[in-house]
Amino acid sequence: MLKQLLSAQVRGVKSSPVRDLLEHSKTPDIISLAGGIPAPDLFDMEGIDSVMAELIAGEHRDVFQYGLTEGEADLRQRIAEWAAPGGVTAAWDSILITSGSQQGLDLIARVLLDRGDRVIVERPTYLAALQVFQFADARVEAVRGGPEGLDVDEVEAKLRQGGVKVIYLLPNFANPTGSTMRLESRVRLVALARRYEALIIEDDPYRQLRLSGEELPTLHSIAAQEPGGTENVIYLSTFSKIFSPGVRVAWLAMPSFLRPAAAVAKQALDLHTSTLSQRIVARYLETGRLSARIQVLRAAYRERRDALVSSLREALGDDLRFDTPDGGLFLWGRFAHGVPAAQVLRHGLEKRVVFVPGTSFYVDDPEHDTVRLSYSMLTPASAREGARRLKLAWDAARPS
Amino acid sequence: MLKQLLSAQVRGVKSSPVRDLLEHSKTPDIISLAGGIPAPDLFDMEGIDSVMAELIAGEHRDVFQYGLTEGEADLRQRIAEWAAPGGVTAAWDSILITSGSQQGLDLIARVLLDRGDRVIVERPTYLAALQVFQFADARVEAVRGGPEGLDVDEVEAKLRQGGVKVIYLLPNFANPTGSTMRLESRVRLVALARRYEALIIEDDPYRQLRLSGEELPTLHSIAAQEPGGTENVIYLSTFSKIFSPGVRVAWLAMPSFLRPAAAVAKQALDLHTSTLSQRIVARYLETGRLSARIQVLRAAYRERRDALVSSLREALGDDLRFDTPDGGLFLWGRFAHGVPAAQVLRHGLEKRVVFVPGTSFYVDDPEHDTVRLSYSMLTPASAREGARRLKLAWDAARPS
Repeated sequence: MLKQLLSAQVRGVKSSPVRDLLEHSKTPDIISLAGGIPAPDLFDMEGIDSVMAELIAGEHRDVFQYGLTEGEADLRQRIAEWAAPGGVTAAWDSILITSGSQQGLDLIARVLLDRGDRVIVERPTYLAALQVFQFADARVEAVRGGPEGLDVDEVEAKLRQGGVKVIYLLPNFANPTGSTMRLESRVRLVALARRYEALIIEDDPYRQLRLSGEELPTLHSIAAQEPGGTENVIYLSTFSKIFSPGVRVAWLAMPSFLRPAAAVAKQALDLHTSTLSQRIVARYLETGRLSARIQVLRAAYRERRDALVSSLREALGDDLRFDTPDGGLFLWGRFAHGVPAAQVLRHGLEKRVVFVPGTSFYVDDPEHDTVRLSYSMLTPASAREGARRLKLAWDAARPS
Repeated sequence: MLKQLLSAQVRGVKSSPVRDLLEHSKTPDIISLAGGIPAPDLFDMEGIDSVMAELIAGEHRDVFQYGLTEGEADLRQRIAEWAAPGGVTAAWDSILITSGSQQGLDLIARVLLDRGDRVIVERPTYLAALQVFQFADARVEAVRGGPEGLDVDEVEAKLRQGGVKVIYLLPNFANPTGSTMRLESRVRLVALARRYEALIIEDDPYRQLRLSGEELPTLHSIAAQEPGGTENVIYLSTFSKIFSPGVRVAWLAMPSFLRPAAAVAKQALDLHTSTLSQRIVARYLETGRLSARIQVLRAAYRERRDALVSSLREALGDDLRFDTPDGGLFLWGRFAHGVPAAQVLRHGLEKRVVFVPGTSFYVDDPEHDTVRLSYSMLTPASAREGARRLKLAWDAARPS
């Protein structure tokens, strides 16, 4: 009877099926295409260890003390320096350190969204962002996506109706679709947000993991071309995919009007992000190793993507259609004949292969035949074997 | 004009005056009685360093990877073992790791509180808890406190009205009052919460810092004497005051009905707490050094408390009345003649001494003559000098 004490918000939020699946994916003989985690064999342990050893060797008592709510000034300055050539020019004091991008999203929801506020997202989109917006009781409206991202015509139609507060998107190699928004769409979306006084949340965790094609400017940098233009853009980035997720250090570049509220919200959320984690990231940036590491990551993930792509083509042919993503960790596919991915997954568990049915990533009206496959942890051999097992599962699930 | 996009919640929440004051307290020649932070000179750096060195020496790639939402199993098990003799018997899987107790409070608010829900707090109480409840749009009702904590008669009257969801309290050496709830009151409050199906949030960050008097059982352990009794108690603890605040590791023991919702909420908040921080705390617990360190902390803080108490008595006599707290980091006082603490503080800034006016800790109708003084960072000399400056400020502020 105590259950009645749960808040309405929580009663409305579902657990993540990805998370539940990950339970399965830890048994040793299974091949998992389900996770979205960076490959630990690609962590720069040498760099991390030298930073930690140096930390212990020097004066470091302050690393274990309370820190500033917005983040350590040193880290924020290094991020500002580091991000500028990558397309985000932000004053160091417009940068807020968060405990992972997940907290960044939650914080933004907290400072911006009231019950019923309209939020535009791509269809499908990042599951944990949907959870955050649902927690905030916002009215989440999904706009058609595709290999080239959000349909800007549809966004414009919604903006014209009025009352849209936030447009959330992953412009590069989105989770789950791997889609990348075209330059023209970026330019148009920035202009629209400006005209209709909506805020763009540019969630960009995979930007550095481009595996093919040409780098595109961030929406933040496009907005910066107009005076005051970045007032309409919140840019989120993280060290989870290029350095380490375990330290939980991410950052966002905020419009000036948001800074006081964001500081108050961050304080209420967790006072500040681990000082130790922040120092480790700051010192790692100082070593200058990150650029070289990103090259290592790109080469490795390119190989893994290509191995999965060719293995899938070979094993499944037209039974699983997909576009090859230009970066990130995910490939988005669709089974033939409208066969539900959940049905294939049931057989997949028998055949010892798991993946995430695409249905998890929709606000409503999911497309049951879609699937998200991650290649981040694969070797060429496990990619082949994974595709082979997927084919077995497919044969068991397909209409005869 | 973009400011109109801020959420109603944020527009309603004030920045922390403590936080703003801390800006002042960092100038070198000021004596600060304002902070509430543990003394860094008391950190067990030798223990921390040996743990970090051992970590680097062994296999530790997994420390930099994503972790489990509820926290590392190893840490949760060690906490369960460690907490039991201290008065909290909880199964390891009822323990949730949070990024500091602040996040624990925020998480609880998220899973329990809907707009307008009634929350009972002590008057005055911990500022950041008030902020969290205000963020949740709860109806916070303050009940008279005192040197022996929450007035249980008044709590009962409110419970009888119906609709109270949560009773929040710090039973030991509360922030800001230093008050400690009597045993009889604890027993009665537990029975009341049970009868009226309300939840007790037992926020207990200072328990290990008892400086005098006899240890009292936790409300959690009192509740455990009845079958299913702990279903009405959420117990919060932290490593911030006894190990390190900078690593941001705290924990809570949850009723079983809350676990699924808490996991979903934690995932939405920040996926999980820093794996690195968790490993460091787990390994430190493994060394067995914590009990000895707590003795060191008690001895040091006892000396600091006594130095401040005697210096204040000597310098201010009856002009500042207070009870000597039995533990924790704070002393709660009241200036004579109803002189507002803010007025004394204005002169204090000139005399180079800062503290926190008590008004910050009230939901409404603050008592302006109250003051919170922290002794955690004082030497006997700085306690004397701080009291001397406070006397100068008082003389400038008092009615002539």
